[in-house]
Amino acid sequence: MNTSPVFLDAKPVSYMIGEQALDHSSKLLVNYPRYVLLVDNNTRNYCLPVFREHLPEFRETDVICIESGEEKKNLDQALFIWKELTRLNVDRDALMINLGGGVLTDIGGFVAATYKRGIAFANVPTTLLGMVDASIGGKTGIDFGKFKNQVGLFVDPVSVVIDPVFLKTLEEKHWQSGFAEVLKYGLIMDRELWQWLYGKDFHEIDFWDKIIVRAARDKIDIVRHDFEEKGVRKNLNFGHTIGHAFESFFLKKETPITHGQAIAAGMICEAYISEKMTDLECSRKEEIVEMIDKNFSRLSVTKEDVPALIDLMRQDKKVREGKLRFSLIKRLGKAVHDKEVSTDLVLESLEYYLHDR
Amino acid sequence: MNTSPVFLDAKPVSYMIGEQALDHSSKLLVNYPRYVLLVDNNTRNYCLPVFREHLPEFRETDVICIESGEEKKNLDQALFIWKELTRLNVDRDALMINLGGGVLTDIGGFVAATYKRGIAFANVPTTLLGMVDASIGGKTGIDFGKFKNQVGLFVDPVSVVIDPVFLKTLEEKHWQSGFAEVLKYGLIMDRELWQWLYGKDFHEIDFWDKIIVRAARDKIDIVRHDFEEKGVRKNLNFGHTIGHAFESFFLKKETPITHGQAIAAGMICEAYISEKMTDLECSRKEEIVEMIDKNFSRLSVTKEDVPALIDLMRQDKKVREGKLRFSLIKRLGKAVHDKEVSTDLVLESLEYYLHDR
Repeated sequence: MNTSPVFLDAKPVSYMIGEQALDHSSKLLVNYPRYVLLVDNNTRNYCLPVFREHLPEFRETDVICIESGEEKKNLDQALFIWKELTRLNVDRDALMINLGGGVLTDIGGFVAATYKRGIAFANVPTTLLGMVDASIGGKTGIDFGKFKNQVGLFVDPVSVVIDPVFLKTLEEKHWQSGFAEVLKYGLIMDRELWQWLYGKDFHEIDFWDKIIVRAARDKIDIVRHDFEEKGVRKNLNFGHTIGHAFESFFLKKETPITHGQAIAAGMICEAYISEKMTDLECSRKEEIVEMIDKNFSRLSVTKEDVPALIDLMRQDKKVREGKLRFSLIKRLGKAVHDKEVSTDLVLESLEYYLHDR
Repeated sequence: MNTSPVFLDAKPVSYMIGEQALDHSSKLLVNYPRYVLLVDNNTRNYCLPVFREHLPEFRETDVICIESGEEKKNLDQALFIWKELTRLNVDRDALMINLGGGVLTDIGGFVAATYKRGIAFANVPTTLLGMVDASIGGKTGIDFGKFKNQVGLFVDPVSVVIDPVFLKTLEEKHWQSGFAEVLKYGLIMDRELWQWLYGKDFHEIDFWDKIIVRAARDKIDIVRHDFEEKGVRKNLNFGHTIGHAFESFFLKKETPITHGQAIAAGMICEAYISEKMTDLECSRKEEIVEMIDKNFSRLSVTKEDVPALIDLMRQDKKVREGKLRFSLIKRLGKAVHDKEVSTDLVLESLEYYLHDR
């Protein structure tokens, strides 16, 4: 008997999403007695001026600046932020505004939630990945050696402001990274979104505002039903069990790839597994693989790397009682979770990834 | 407008308190797929054998051992535990059992709540302070330089097992430390408890089981009404605003005192402030000061230390908008919170502490 029943945290979050969201977000952000803005060396240069132009009330707000990059999502940077908050005498009534991509909102949320036992924070994502995924749903954390998000917690921001204005500041690889997650929403829950995108190269897409609003709402829908990832939220892990292993593998080799590249590769493998284990038709699997290949190059891995990848999967947070459990596609727009997959079939999917190109 | 309403976390906690609690706690602790026990170098020697004697099902459980002591309640030790959990391949379904005093349950709760975004934990306090205070109410954290509990969060254990059997393992200074908190419950909310104790030296008390059950229930009563410390829970801070400053002051000088010694001194100062600011009668204040002096020696501080103490108070987490707010005694068994106190009156109370002895 586990004496702690499942408990769904129903704390409301305010979202403002779409064109001109920044201009409308003033009422979500103001009226705290103290503010602090968290940026990184990229968003300080490219996004902070935009933010302050739209929200002039924050022109004088204290700024804490960290280093950008997934490899900087570590305890040293968390320590730096805790120290800066202490130095600036920030007290419990303050609001911390996290202005950046997924790395920054993950680490910023973790630090805010643990500074003086928790101050309020708001996320203002500046990357496609941040807008459609990382800024929503309360997952915060830092990496720990080769283990992604090994230290962190589930804690919601008070507000999330998603304004596509920041996309103009993005490099191509960061667009592409978020695009993998957009494709994932299509596959697991939003057939219509998939149909908007199917057959297109992401360079030729010109309706990003519409895509962002749609994908962000998909994510919000899932997490408000299952904040603590006991059920349906696990569907979001499609592509991620194998994808995270790829991501950790390249991080460890010190040739990091983007989250999106990793998840794209993971989705190919897991679409293969889906076909073997669910009703997913072979032609549909091929459609999925074709669309991913159209937008993402295959990763440079070889047969010799496979044992290391399997080993990394076993370290995944989603492993329960030592068993590999996957979220798989049943049909377009419909996923299932907690499917136990044999190591043999995982190996077979990696073989497929290595050879079918 | 703060868009996040006050939210009271109603997750239930199972408590087992009193003689033979350990023997009855099996059903609260078992049925997790994996366990890990956190101890320190003291509780490993003196408490772990007792725990395993009463709960033989944990004889083979993995043990993580940290160093004991308030000055070890730091990020390095948290890092060590995160690393050990990782090395032992502990996954999200595990239960961590924190066997120790307040330092250990504070750090253990923080680490469990942030490992892989949170695993369940149970507290088994082994000190008087742990039994009547630290193990109950979900405050977790680590110190940060001279700032106490600067990093941490509110998160409840799934179970708390409070068995006085461990008191036999205690050194006198640790008994005394918890006794300050017991006296505090009497003053702020439990006149009858105060009357059990008044006039006694803690060495001559022989009904600790009864005291522990009473004081633990007082604490549980408060925190279940106000988990997030928005109101009545603040009453527990009586003696702590000035007490924490004393505690940090001696820690910084590298001559640490116990939490109880610090809080005893803080209660003398804050009883003085209470008399000046509330209806507390002078004779009652003298009764309080007399009882504390009977059980705790005055600390070695001088007039020259006062500015440093005031400075430390300004760093307290309870400071809001730069103002010092106190919880004060209104009459025996009744407290009030959020009383703004002038720096002059705080200075006067420190003068009183230094000279009235």
